[in-house]
This record gives sequence, structure tokens and C-alpha cells, in this order.
Amino acid sequence: MRFDVLAHDGAARIGRLTTAHGDHETPLFLPVGTYGAVKGVPVELLRATGARALLANALHLALRPGAEALARLGGLHAFMGWDGLILTDSGGYQVLSLAALRRVSEEGVLFRSPVDGREILLTPERAVAVQHAAGSDILMVLDQVLPHPAPAARVAEAAERSLRWARRCLEAHGNHPGALFAIVQGGTDPELRRRSARALCAEGFAGYALGGLAVGESFEQRREILAVSVPELPADRPRYLMGVGRPEDIVEAVRHGIDLFDCVIPTRHARNAHLFTGDGVVRLRQARHAEDPRPLDERCHGPCCRRHSRAYLRHLDRLGDPLFVTLASLHNIGYYMALMNALRAAIRAGRVGDFRPEEAIASYGVPCDNAGP
Amino acid sequence: MRFDVLAHDGAARIGRLTTAHGDHETPLFLPVGTYGAVKGVPVELLRATGARALLANALHLALRPGAEALARLGGLHAFMGWDGLILTDSGGYQVLSLAALRRVSEEGVLFRSPVDGREILLTPERAVAVQHAAGSDILMVLDQVLPHPAPAARVAEAAERSLRWARRCLEAHGNHPGALFAIVQGGTDPELRRRSARALCAEGFAGYALGGLAVGESFEQRREILAVSVPELPADRPRYLMGVGRPEDIVEAVRHGIDLFDCVIPTRHARNAHLFTGDGVVRLRQARHAEDPRPLDERCHGPCCRRHSRAYLRHLDRLGDPLFVTLASLHNIGYYMALMNALRAAIRAGRVGDFRPEEAIASYGVPCDNAGP
Repeated sequence: MRFDVLAHDGAARIGRLTTAHGDHETPLFLPVGTYGAVKGVPVELLRATGARALLANALHLALRPGAEALARLGGLHAFMGWDGLILTDSGGYQVLSLAALRRVSEEGVLFRSPVDGREILLTPERAVAVQHAAGSDILMVLDQVLPHPAPAARVAEAAERSLRWARRCLEAHGNHPGALFAIVQGGTDPELRRRSARALCAEGFAGYALGGLAVGESFEQRREILAVSVPELPADRPRYLMGVGRPEDIVEAVRHGIDLFDCVIPTRHARNAHLFTGDGVVRLRQARHAEDPRPLDERCHGPCCRRHSRAYLRHLDRLGDPLFVTLASLHNIGYYMALMNALRAAIRAGRVGDFRPEEAIASYGVPCDNAGP
Repeated sequence: MRFDVLAHDGAARIGRLTTAHGDHETPLFLPVGTYGAVKGVPVELLRATGARALLANALHLALRPGAEALARLGGLHAFMGWDGLILTDSGGYQVLSLAALRRVSEEGVLFRSPVDGREILLTPERAVAVQHAAGSDILMVLDQVLPHPAPAARVAEAAERSLRWARRCLEAHGNHPGALFAIVQGGTDPELRRRSARALCAEGFAGYALGGLAVGESFEQRREILAVSVPELPADRPRYLMGVGRPEDIVEAVRHGIDLFDCVIPTRHARNAHLFTGDGVVRLRQARHAEDPRPLDERCHGPCCRRHSRAYLRHLDRLGDPLFVTLASLHNIGYYMALMNALRAAIRAGRVGDFRPEEAIASYGVPCDNAGP
């Protein structure tokens, strides 16, 4: 993988990721397909939103279908029929929420599988091996994520351990294809964040993520972490803010120089009938939409808005028709793609400082400027 | 609506339905979209299977979103974003299975709404009004359907009442656009069937259906009903076998001269992970498919088989991902479209007598020969 910075607007920047699965302009948003599928969304319709990159989760895939099965089936791209970029998270964050009987030692994380109750030891080496089996374009190191808030001593200890695990991941990765990204930890403590970033950068990873966020900290705390961490990262490597992704969070982070994003918000909100529009979120379960013949957003050129009214979408949601998940997810992903298009345009025009998420509507359904496959 | 018979092979025939929503070659299969959606299937992907016609249910639509709401929203075509043919069933059959507290009188069927508990009186006039509100291309009369087996006297009585209701529907329909079809009743009694058919034909409907089937009668009983009923129907009007639709049932009925079919089998089987292939039904929940890298059918050119393995589809089903419903439904609908293509080809070639459902595979993913919109 190669990364080139093409343009700047203050700290914000346009970059190009050149990968085995297409070229991708940054800032780039990756929809979440935890188990190798964006829930309810056929890949050809996902592509039609402009999405050319997605995130899957190595831990989940290791549970189902299993890493060895995945390798035998030709890796995740073949398994899910997706020729775009795949970034896999290692599962450090998911162990926090998913697993019962969690015990963290220097060796790794021991947890009980929520699928069949087996005890599983997730080590840095195993996390990398699973991602090799998946054939990920971008791999993430295994890190130890803490809930927020956590005592300062534990935060420091977890950041130290995450650093040692990151080194083990680098060792295990060797010269396999795929770009291994480190994850900066340190909770909300600026000094710990700086120290974590510096130590990881000394190891020479292909990219750097800010991790341990979206766990309950405030917008302002996140801004401070961005302000202290990003300047520590090398300018010639992609920077990835993990799991953070309300539109306003993305705008803020782009201004700090973040290149990559993933978040469940567009798809999870969709399943809860919260739809993004240029006028804010439409809560489709409200009765007032029952006979509304208008699309979600009249300015949107996506297939959902070109074809369907709020009344019809609400009807599908009430019926529990899986088609609702498909259409709503596509709409929200399309909104995020438009947001990223508009953000890239604002950086190019040197006006990202004044950018407001509402500008996304100007890029609704505009063919994506990504040069993906 | 206009109907022309283009070719014969024994009693089997090729016809063309010319409608406000496209021209459609028969024998034609209509996937079921009860509430104005084929569960989990976006309309553009439904079109891509070759489907240009579908069935919805007036009774269900009257419950949700409501007939008046549907009319205000511009009718069912606009509501669901579908420019193909829509045939609506009146709900006579569905009252049988759906509704509690059913009471049939000469006036109509009184039942309790499963949605909100309201008492609803479905009369022939109301059934037609709902279908007018939907803007259906083909409307069905309200009939009284009995479970099978039923006492001979009740069967006769229901057939008589259905005839009177059919006349009321014709009166209520007036010269509204849309083609009103009658429904031949009479259970498994050949004489009642003949009598019902003759009496309805005397009224001059736009088309004729055989109803009250797929309620538990045998293949042989159905064959006898076809044999005695179809010859009573006018050759220049379309003939529709309601709700019957295993591939072997369709082949048999086409040989008797049936033109139109609908059935929940392809979509319901799909949701239960029963997938049609040229080698029979694949039961995808069987463990042996867990690591099978092959598509459902290697000869199929549909998007599901071109892109996804049995292993991946099974993975989605295990996860309960709504994408499984989408892909599996599309595959099975695609199989039925291929079956109908192959049947039409066999009629044209004068060999429908020897046709076997397995021949459908020859037409897999072949662009549909329907000249729909």
C-alpha cells in the first residue's frame, strides 16, 4: 500500500491510498461490515453509493465462519464478493463489549465465545494471523481497550501493554502483504497519548490509528486528544480515527488531519429508522411521516430517494420487512459518501474551516470522486 | 388490458398481455409482494431477475397502509416504485388464514383486524374499491374460500355465494381501468367446478382464475380440477391458477392451458434457506454446505451465483443478516423466471409435453424474453 498526500487546507488534507483493491481518496469513510457483510446491503448496491472500502472485524470472523475456513474459502474479498478495500479491526475493542469472562494477561485476552461458549485466547500473533487469513488490505494491531472513565494507572498500564502487543503484531506480520496499522492509546490523558504515539511511530508502522475512543468521552475530550496526538504522527502515513463518526465528529477530525474513518452510526441508525438528510436526522417512526409522499430528502439522487416516499419506507419499517434495512442503510451510507465528497471538495477549495455537515447535500448521489476499482 | 394468444402446443399456449404497465408474455409467474414489497428485495434487483409483474394483496394493503392512504399516495405503483404489472388478490383466501372472528354472511366477511383489533367488513364492493385505490392492473373478485376438505353442501353454497359476489364486483367495477378477473370455485367437485366456470363465463369477465386451491388437496385432485375447468373457460381470455406453484405444479398447469401463476414458494422457501437449482432444492442449513465454495448452481448467471458461494450464503443465514433474505429470494425468483422462460421456449418448440423443470437451468440468467416496461 502506498499513501500520497495530494493537497492541504491547514491540517486537513487530501490523500490517495494506492492498494491492491483500488485507489482511494482520503478523507475516506468505511461502512461497517463486521461479519463480512454490511447488514442487509448487496455489494452491488453498496458500490452504487460510491463506497469502495469497508471495515470488517477479525475477531467476529474468527468466531464465524472461522479464520481457517475463511482462508480455505479464499479470504474475505472472495468470501463476500467485494473487490474494494477491506480494513479489519483486530477485535481489541469488541472483546470489551462482546465477550464474557474476559481476562487480560501479557499473553493476550482470554474470553468465552458468545457463539459456542469455547474459551478463546486472542493473542497479538493470533489477531494478525486471522487478518492474514482474511487477506485484509489494512490490518490493525491488537490493543487493550478500557472503558471510559478508567483509573489513570490502568490507562497507563493498558497503553504500555498495547505498545508491547503492537511490537509483537509487527513481528508476526513480517513482510506479508497488507498494511499493518498501529493504534495510539492513552485514554483522555494528553501525556499518555503523546507517549503512546511517539513510541509507536518509532516502530515504523504503515499507518496510525487513534483508538480507545467512542467509549463515553466528550466531544471536547476527543478534540483535545486529536490536538495532542495527530501532530505526533508522521505526515506521510495515513491516520485513522477508529469508531468515531457522527457527521460533526468527522468534520472536526478531518480539520485535525485525520484521513480514515469507520463507524456503525449510518447503518445502525438506519436500522432504527433514523435517516440522515440535509435538514438533519429524520426519525421515520414518528406518526407524522405516515402519509408523507416526499422522499427523505428531495435533493438526494440516491435510489431510495428517487424511488420511495417517507410513507413507503415507514410502511416497510412497520412491517419489519428486511427491505427497510436495505433501503435505509443505503440511504445513510449514501449520505456519508456525500459528506466525504463534500469534505474533500472543501479541502481542495481551502474552506474546510467553514464546512458544515449540511453541505453534504450538494454532493448527494454525485458520482464518487474516488478512483476505486 | 388486451390478451392475444400467439402460439399453441396442445392445450398449452403462449399469450401476450398488453397492459398500461408493459407487455407480458404468458405463461407468466408473479412473485408475491403481499404488502407492496417482495420481502427484502429492492425493485431494481427484482427487475434484474426478469420479473415484470407481481401480486399484492388488497386485504393486507387495506389494513396497512390503508386503502384511502394508498389512494392519497398515488396508488400502489407509485407507493412501491414499481412500473411493472400489479395484480391484486381481493383477500378472500387471506381471510381464511389471517383473520380471527371470521363471520361470513351474504353481505360479506366480517373479521377482526390482526393489526389493531378493529372489526372490518369486507364486502365485494369494498374489495373492488380497495383495488381501485391501489390502481391494480388486474383485480380479483372477492370469493368465499373454504378449507379442504369441506362438506359438499358447504362447498356448493360457497360456490353459489362466490358467484353472487362476483356479479356484485363486476357491478362495482363498472368501467374503471384495470381488468377484473373472476374466480372459479367448487372445491374438488368436478360438477361444481364446471357449473361455477360456466356461470362466471356468462358474465364476461376480463380473465378467469381457478381459486380455492393449494389448501390441502392432492396433485391428482388438482389435475382433475384443471382438466374439467379449463375447457369451460373462453380461449381468448387469460387463465390464472391462484397460489399454486411448485415447479412441477406449474408445468402441469401450463400443459392444461393456464397462463398466469403466483405463489409464495420461491420467496418463502428462500427465507427458510431452501434454494432451487437445476439439481433440485439445496437445503442450505445442512452442515455440509458450511465450507462449500461453489455457488448454488454453477450454471446460474444470476448475481447471487456469480458472486457468492454456498458457504457465504449459509454464513449470512446463520447470522440472521437480512441480506440473506435478499440474495436467497432473488435466486429463487430468478429460478422461477428461468423456469417460465424455458416453458415458453418449450411451447414454441412444440415439446411442452416432454418438458422437465430441470430444463430451467438452460435459461438461468438469460435476459427475459418478456417485453415488459
